Amino acid sequence: MQRIAIALNQLQNQQIILTSEQQHYLYRVLRLQKGDKFIAMDGMGKWWLSQLSDTNAQILHEIIVETELPIAVTLMIALPKGNGFDEVVRCCTELGVSCIIPVISDRTLLKPSVQKVERWRRIAQEAAEQSERTKIPQILEPVAFKQIISSFVNVEKYICVARGDSPHLLHYLQHQPQKNVVIATGAEGGWTKQEVEIALQNGFQQVSLGNRILRAVTAPIAIMSLISAGSEV
Amino acid sequence: MQRIAIALNQLQNQQIILTSEQQHYLYRVLRLQKGDKFIAMDGMGKWWLSQLSDTNAQILHEIIVETELPIAVTLMIALPKGNGFDEVVRCCTELGVSCIIPVISDRTLLKPSVQKVERWRRIAQEAAEQSERTKIPQILEPVAFKQIISSFVNVEKYICVARGDSPHLLHYLQHQPQKNVVIATGAEGGWTKQEVEIALQNGFQQVSLGNRILRAVTAPIAIMSLISAGSEV
Repeated sequence: MQRIAIALNQLQNQQIILTSEQQHYLYRVLRLQKGDKFIAMDGMGKWWLSQLSDTNAQILHEIIVETELPIAVTLMIALPKGNGFDEVVRCCTELGVSCIIPVISDRTLLKPSVQKVERWRRIAQEAAEQSERTKIPQILEPVAFKQIISSFVNVEKYICVARGDSPHLLHYLQHQPQKNVVIATGAEGGWTKQEVEIALQNGFQQVSLGNRILRAVTAPIAIMSLISAGSEV
Repeated sequence: MQRIAIALNQLQNQQIILTSEQQHYLYRVLRLQKGDKFIAMDGMGKWWLSQLSDTNAQILHEIIVETELPIAVTLMIALPKGNGFDEVVRCCTELGVSCIIPVISDRTLLKPSVQKVERWRRIAQEAAEQSERTKIPQILEPVAFKQIISSFVNVEKYICVARGDSPHLLHYLQHQPQKNVVIATGAEGGWTKQEVEIALQNGFQQVSLGNRILRAVTAPIAIMSLISAGSEV
């Protein structure tokens, strides 16, 4: 069944007030008709079976699904060049990420436009709908690495570094119980020495993602694959 | 140091006869000069430190690197629509895949052109060089699912299915020693019921990749992330 995300202020007395975009999508794109059913999701954990009725929809009942990970994962991702971040947002959403922080690092080339951030949020919403998640991950505004790095408390913190002999991230995931993790991955060329030092000073642990050099786009997807499998098996 | 792939017939008495493309790449693109060093790889496991000398290069000595997985992984991937397969080949090569078989399944829309296959092989070669692998994965010619599915003997075989309550692939990876695996992932919409049945009849085990629905592009990358981390930690 089709799923669409709605905002909380569209909900009134078991009715969903549909926006004109949603009406267009349901009636024109999906070709549903009055009386047809679809799933409305609030993006924060709830799904409702809903029935179309003109410009509104009636909520029939809640649907309980368990597609969210038992662990909250925040990825701090140094922005790669080109459009690679679209794919990162899409794949990591499918794999269960909670929050993505686009980070401007020393080796990031460009500060993204406001339109880019809006685009990533749309991608996260679409990917959450398509992958049957109940929560839409948060995509924060891009922020400088040195500004955000000290902001995390009471959480396991890791920074991925491509060369050197740090323990593999999987080693920590297997041996330390995790409920809430922050994991930082670099841009092309990786983190600078100074960035890694600052992260270590702020309680991050240096980890590896294996013996090969992963691109900036591949690393976050590999991380989410490990965490999602590890927390569900 | 820069790495380039060479063919075995370019090797003669510790000399590499460079092709005109390689000469262009080394002298014009990388701006190396006579006497400069680079790494030549045969794509089958060997790296040699080499020194440029006009249209040839002299092999100085072999370099021993360990970036290959201790497990041989063949991915049978039903071709997704659009250009998604480029990204699959690139990411899976970085993550250590041995062989990729592009598969025409019941839900595959198009048979790819010869140019596409050439393109995927170039991408695999580039990704192997960049990720510092010593082997270039094989990309086979596209083949029909029903033709290839009975071809695998003496190897662990898995088929990924999105819905249902199959055990997670990770469960098998952790509990069965693996040296050689074949893993099949579907196109948009997944495998047909009949395809899954044929796979099971041919000794494949049905596995899940978690509670969310992954796109055809994401599933192979998630698989390789699990296998590469699991076999190196």
